[in-house]
Amino acid sequence: MHTTLQPTEGETTTLHQDYLHLHQRPELSMQEHNTASFIESRLTEMGIEHFRCGGTGVVGILRNGQGPVVAFRADSDGLPIQEDTKVDYASTARGTLDDGTDVPVMHGCGHDTHVAGALAAARILVRGTDSWQGTVIFIFQPGEETSAGAAAMVADGLWEKVPHPQVVLGQHVFPFATGTISVTPESAMAMADSLEVTLYGKQAHGSQPQDSIDPIVLGANIITRLQTITSRELNPLDSAVVTCGSFHAGLKENIIPDSAVFTLNIRTLTEEVRAKVLAAVTRIINAEAVASGAPQPKITELYTFPRLYNDPQHTEQLVGALGEEFGEELIRLAPPAMGSEDFGALADAIGVPNVFWMFGGADPQDPSPAVNHSPFFLPEYRGALDTAVRAAVAGLMHYVGR
Amino acid sequence: MHTTLQPTEGETTTLHQDYLHLHQRPELSMQEHNTASFIESRLTEMGIEHFRCGGTGVVGILRNGQGPVVAFRADSDGLPIQEDTKVDYASTARGTLDDGTDVPVMHGCGHDTHVAGALAAARILVRGTDSWQGTVIFIFQPGEETSAGAAAMVADGLWEKVPHPQVVLGQHVFPFATGTISVTPESAMAMADSLEVTLYGKQAHGSQPQDSIDPIVLGANIITRLQTITSRELNPLDSAVVTCGSFHAGLKENIIPDSAVFTLNIRTLTEEVRAKVLAAVTRIINAEAVASGAPQPKITELYTFPRLYNDPQHTEQLVGALGEEFGEELIRLAPPAMGSEDFGALADAIGVPNVFWMFGGADPQDPSPAVNHSPFFLPEYRGALDTAVRAAVAGLMHYVGR
Amino acid sequence: MHTTLQPTEGETTTLHQDYLHLHQRPELSMQEHNTASFIESRLTEMGIEHFRCGGTGVVGILRNGQGPVVAFRADSDGLPIQEDTKVDYASTARGTLDDGTDVPVMHGCGHDTHVAGALAAARILVRGTDSWQGTVIFIFQPGEETSAGAAAMVADGLWEKVPHPQVVLGQHVFPFATGTISVTPESAMAMADSLEVTLYGKQAHGSQPQDSIDPIVLGANIITRLQTITSRELNPLDSAVVTCGSFHAGLKENIIPDSAVFTLNIRTLTEEVRAKVLAAVTRIINAEAVASGAPQPKITELYTFPRLYNDPQHTEQLVGALGEEFGEELIRLAPPAMGSEDFGALADAIGVPNVFWMFGGADPQDPSPAVNHSPFFLPEYRGALDTAVRAAVAGLMHYVGR
Amino acid sequence: MHTTLQPTEGETTTLHQDYLHLHQRPELSMQEHNTASFIESRLTEMGIEHFRCGGTGVVGILRNGQGPVVAFRADSDGLPIQEDTKVDYASTARGTLDDGTDVPVMHGCGHDTHVAGALAAARILVRGTDSWQGTVIFIFQPGEETSAGAAAMVADGLWEKVPHPQVVLGQHVFPFATGTISVTPESAMAMADSLEVTLYGKQAHGSQPQDSIDPIVLGANIITRLQTITSRELNPLDSAVVTCGSFHAGLKENIIPDSAVFTLNIRTLTEEVRAKVLAAVTRIINAEAVASGAPQPKITELYTFPRLYNDPQHTEQLVGALGEEFGEELIRLAPPAMGSEDFGALADAIGVPNVFWMFGGADPQDPSPAVNHSPFFLPEYRGALDTAVRAAVAGLMHYVGR
Repeated sequence: MHTTLQPTEGETTTLHQDYLHLHQRPELSMQEHNTASFIESRLTEMGIEHFRCGGTGVVGILRNGQGPVVAFRADSDGLPIQEDTKVDYASTARGTLDDGTDVPVMHGCGHDTHVAGALAAARILVRGTDSWQGTVIFIFQPGEETSAGAAAMVADGLWEKVPHPQVVLGQHVFPFATGTISVTPESAMAMADSLEVTLYGKQAHGSQPQDSIDPIVLGANIITRLQTITSRELNPLDSAVVTCGSFHAGLKENIIPDSAVFTLNIRTLTEEVRAKVLAAVTRIINAEAVASGAPQPKITELYTFPRLYNDPQHTEQLVGALGEEFGEELIRLAPPAMGSEDFGALADAIGVPNVFWMFGGADPQDPSPAVNHSPFFLPEYRGALDTAVRAAVAGLMHYVGR
Repeated sequence: MHTTLQPTEGETTTLHQDYLHLHQRPELSMQEHNTASFIESRLTEMGIEHFRCGGTGVVGILRNGQGPVVAFRADSDGLPIQEDTKVDYASTARGTLDDGTDVPVMHGCGHDTHVAGALAAARILVRGTDSWQGTVIFIFQPGEETSAGAAAMVADGLWEKVPHPQVVLGQHVFPFATGTISVTPESAMAMADSLEVTLYGKQAHGSQPQDSIDPIVLGANIITRLQTITSRELNPLDSAVVTCGSFHAGLKENIIPDSAVFTLNIRTLTEEVRAKVLAAVTRIINAEAVASGAPQPKITELYTFPRLYNDPQHTEQLVGALGEEFGEELIRLAPPAMGSEDFGALADAIGVPNVFWMFGGADPQDPSPAVNHSPFFLPEYRGALDTAVRAAVAGLMHYVGR
Repeated sequence: MHTTLQPTEGETTTLHQDYLHLHQRPELSMQEHNTASFIESRLTEMGIEHFRCGGTGVVGILRNGQGPVVAFRADSDGLPIQEDTKVDYASTARGTLDDGTDVPVMHGCGHDTHVAGALAAARILVRGTDSWQGTVIFIFQPGEETSAGAAAMVADGLWEKVPHPQVVLGQHVFPFATGTISVTPESAMAMADSLEVTLYGKQAHGSQPQDSIDPIVLGANIITRLQTITSRELNPLDSAVVTCGSFHAGLKENIIPDSAVFTLNIRTLTEEVRAKVLAAVTRIINAEAVASGAPQPKITELYTFPRLYNDPQHTEQLVGALGEEFGEELIRLAPPAMGSEDFGALADAIGVPNVFWMFGGADPQDPSPAVNHSPFFLPEYRGALDTAVRAAVAGLMHYVGR
Repeated sequence: MHTTLQPTEGETTTLHQDYLHLHQRPELSMQEHNTASFIESRLTEMGIEHFRCGGTGVVGILRNGQGPVVAFRADSDGLPIQEDTKVDYASTARGTLDDGTDVPVMHGCGHDTHVAGALAAARILVRGTDSWQGTVIFIFQPGEETSAGAAAMVADGLWEKVPHPQVVLGQHVFPFATGTISVTPESAMAMADSLEVTLYGKQAHGSQPQDSIDPIVLGANIITRLQTITSRELNPLDSAVVTCGSFHAGLKENIIPDSAVFTLNIRTLTEEVRAKVLAAVTRIINAEAVASGAPQPKITELYTFPRLYNDPQHTEQLVGALGEEFGEELIRLAPPAMGSEDFGALADAIGVPNVFWMFGGADPQDPSPAVNHSPFFLPEYRGALDTAVRAAVAGLMHYVGR
């Protein structure tokens, strides 16, 4: 067992200040300009070497002699949600979507705890260089919510600019009790593929269906048919979701429209299942268009969330390390979740393992707080940050601790 | 106006005897051996030249000097139904289906009135040769119920053996009041196409859908999709029916079967609509199989009923002629019916016009008798036969009467 | 045969001027303020007693001694379409939709020919009072396109303010040859019912369908099921259309939305079929919601177009009268059309018969002009107006001519 | 660690003989009369107290002083399959199904290895009474394939006639390598519910859908809708199957039938999911009938396979015990299987834990033999039986060994 480092009172005060600062200044995905500047100024204060990467991403490199290299990622973006938590430090920030819409912005997924926690962990490691040796790379990643950020950092040469780590670590706040950790070996979160499908029909007056190719009836048949992918084409022991989140066609009740547009969100846990589902989706959409005598639909990929595969051996080690920090009984092995994360893209880009765990952000006395992405989402920040920092430090020290 | 001929008392007695004889001796389609012999013996008695055609069909040629040639068709087959009319002359006959099954047989569609009526009309014309001149061809056609008979007679050289008529006439008993006639100009009855479709899937245990291609789910999607042909592909002012009359797949609840078989019955009133529907049926079945990743289904034609198109001008003339016989107000112009008849194949084979009308077979005092093809179907035979004979003679005399 | 009246050269000049005036000043449904004023000024010039009715409707009463009373209706509204006919008198008018949108306006359905033609007919009758006696009521109706106008005039007391006519006549321009007339006895145009349906589901993240009630999948099943109304529940010889003209649900591909909204347009030719279809639509929508475990959907009537039933006897008489005017061979008896009109609501309100015919507006040398409601719709106005006026006068004179 | 007992050469010879005897004399479910007699004679030879239970079930009680009580179950029925393995000891047996059909019978699921293995284990324990103490109850259960046997034994008073064990053990041969064991903690195999559903429509001629309620179209909509249960109503991380294994309706292509019958097989791993799926199936079937205007369908339960829940603590202990016997690396922890077993009903009837494991029956050099229920299914019997006996003895000795 390694000796680990605990935050001092002063470090905790700074941690709380950082969190409250960030919480009130959330920024939309890939627009985290002020957040990046804030991170940079903090790293500069700590004397940690850093550089911009992927636009609004920041990478800090903390070198402490020969030894293992390990990376730790914290994502930094907010969400276009109006915070409705009633706390006096609630966000009133606004942002501008790509289409120009002005929207409220909120740290509705708790990434403020991730950034503040990572900065605190860095501060502790800087203070405690006697206790460890090696190199720790802090990756402050933008744009997790849109799956753009990890890819942008990799594309911007992240791994050419830092030594390759033996493992990439990351963590996420969730509304279970502070002081507890949840981790899933192997496939931990779902891959997500989002598609936009345009169906082409033929417009006609509502009284003359014979002159139309009805894209709404075609769409209805496709939606209905897509249900058979999970019900008939997959092993019932595999997990997959095919959700049609939107369907839009037509302006007037008495005009059969000439097209319809719908979006799909597909979630799978393995590449094999993913490939099977994507092939089935395409096969069904195209064949149903043929059944309608319609032109071939257009299928456009909106975005893809990569796999998040926790290396089993590293996961087992970290369960041990975190168990020492928090108590073995407070580390839960959880089944996979169907939600998605782009964390996995970082390590997968260079073929190294990664481990991603969930830390509790809810008051243990108030066990059912609002969930992530809700206007009411509000971590009990003191406990949440304490959990975040101790988990980060314990995880890192497992690799670099003396 | 032509003078027409009316049956004598003796002719009516013979007519009733013929009907009762035939009613008790119905034979299945294309097996009308005794019926054909009976017709032949009657034609021989009358001195009418005749010959066999199409197996159990009989053709009589009544020549009476120079003049128009006109044909009159009466169909002769019974149905595999157990008569349940309680009359003392009810049929107790039995027959053997193609697959060897022994079945009860009944004149459940009233073809006995057609044959007896045509024989009576022939008898009257033989007696009344002074009143007319020309040639009348009596076509006693087998196998109307299976759409085999008209085609068989044409294939057997019917039109090479008789002079071509200027028009082919025919009639059918229906359960409306005796003494009344119903006729539909132009498309009078539906074309019918019957298909058998075999879907090929892949068998698997019910717990392992991933190893199957489920032909029942495929079939369900096809049946559902076929509904869109009439709802979306046809002009609402056109008429068509696509009925799936049977669907059979699987033996056990926990085995996904490897195939499914269903039958379709398609009815249309015009060749244009028929072609459109048949193309859509094929397009949908094949595309849905592709949507399932299944092999191409097998689509087999079971039988086809041809169009029955009443020539408008001849129909108008006959409405006049029948109106003179029965009273103008007793001739009804009816919309098309979705039932089918192979009568049209006779005239269509040589491109001459035809007219087919319905005559009433129900007691006017008892207006709702059982319908054709019911075990309880029972014309009020005296009135029905009187109507049949007068309509046949009036129709023929319109062309050949002096 | 009655002597009828023909337009003079001067009347024709005025007719053309009126048409060109109206064509350049189309107004949206129920906003025909300037059109109404124009009609009023013309009626005043002619010395015809008149009054406003139903907002922008105008009624003129032309009394000429004892005799029959007959009404003639002309509808006056334009459409929110940008005229694209290239003629120098093309409309550049604009209007404001109920929701405040500024839109181009065009006489895209030819109602300008109806109003100009009716004014010319009135002018001729005023001039020719020697040739007829009785009372002619000219009904200049607003808001035909939205099915609001006839109902508004009836609600505003139309029939309390004028003597009840023995018949109501009306006519509509269509893109077939000028100088020809088309009329349909009995059910002439379809009743139309437009519904908006709101489905209530339950929102959930796209990865958690188990927490949702998916309104898009529910909607797809409803759309699919609605196809069975025409395919399975109606007599194939009846005509009906159930069109879903719009379907809107969801904002984001990874959120299952909490509701969906779609619109239906239902067209039928008889009240019996209409009742059957509406009942089936409601039954299917509600039962499918139950199948999804969803709350009861909300079904809202958007508008209803009434029946347009041409009295058979009056139609036969008018076919005769119009045949005398145009030549018997230029009057076509047409099958019903699935389009809709609110004309029938006027006569039906007081239980008197009506007859509505189509007159040709296309250059006989240019047989395929743009159809009504197209940006390119453009009657050959000289021929169209001549046909309109002669038909109107001939139709009216049939009843009131000496 | 307990000393365990190994089979002697003589015991192995008898084991092989017993297996070959049983393999050639398979009997259908609940008809295992000769099998039961054979088991009885063997138990008598060994001096083990026994009694009949549940018709063709046999229970042996081996008492060896004070100590733990543990039960071991072996199922004994064959399947109506024609063995096609080409071995000289292949079964040529025949049996009679409940409906009187004469069918071939085969030990197509390897229950002959279960019975022979259990008899050998008993023989070894009788020989080695010095090594253990307590009571071992051998349950030779009939009718596993139809889920009738365990219930029949319980209903016949099994647990009133023997001391209650602290655990019930059981095992099953599968086509993986001999010498290896697979076991699933907690939910190990699926519950199965089989339903027969009768849909009631209304018969009509195929040309007159308006007079029908079409049960085939209704059925197609139900089948389609049932797919949404797994795709939309369940957590994607849960496993369930809803298979429609058969669908039968209609005799003739041109008659819409008056009913349809289909069967469902539903597999779930937890009672909660099972209840949810069964409720959804019923809800959908009934609501779709309402959507068709059809009478309420009849839903009949054909049979139910109970849960098979391996107690986690006992499973862990047995993994240890079997690991000692076979080598730790040859014991695989497997995910649940969607197949079904009625083994769980024995222990559940008295609320005691059970553990059920799979033992390998395939030649390790020939890794892809035919699967269970195939005509080609053939364990490599020497290795399979050796594995079965050693696993049974090791499992039992874990509880009763000294």
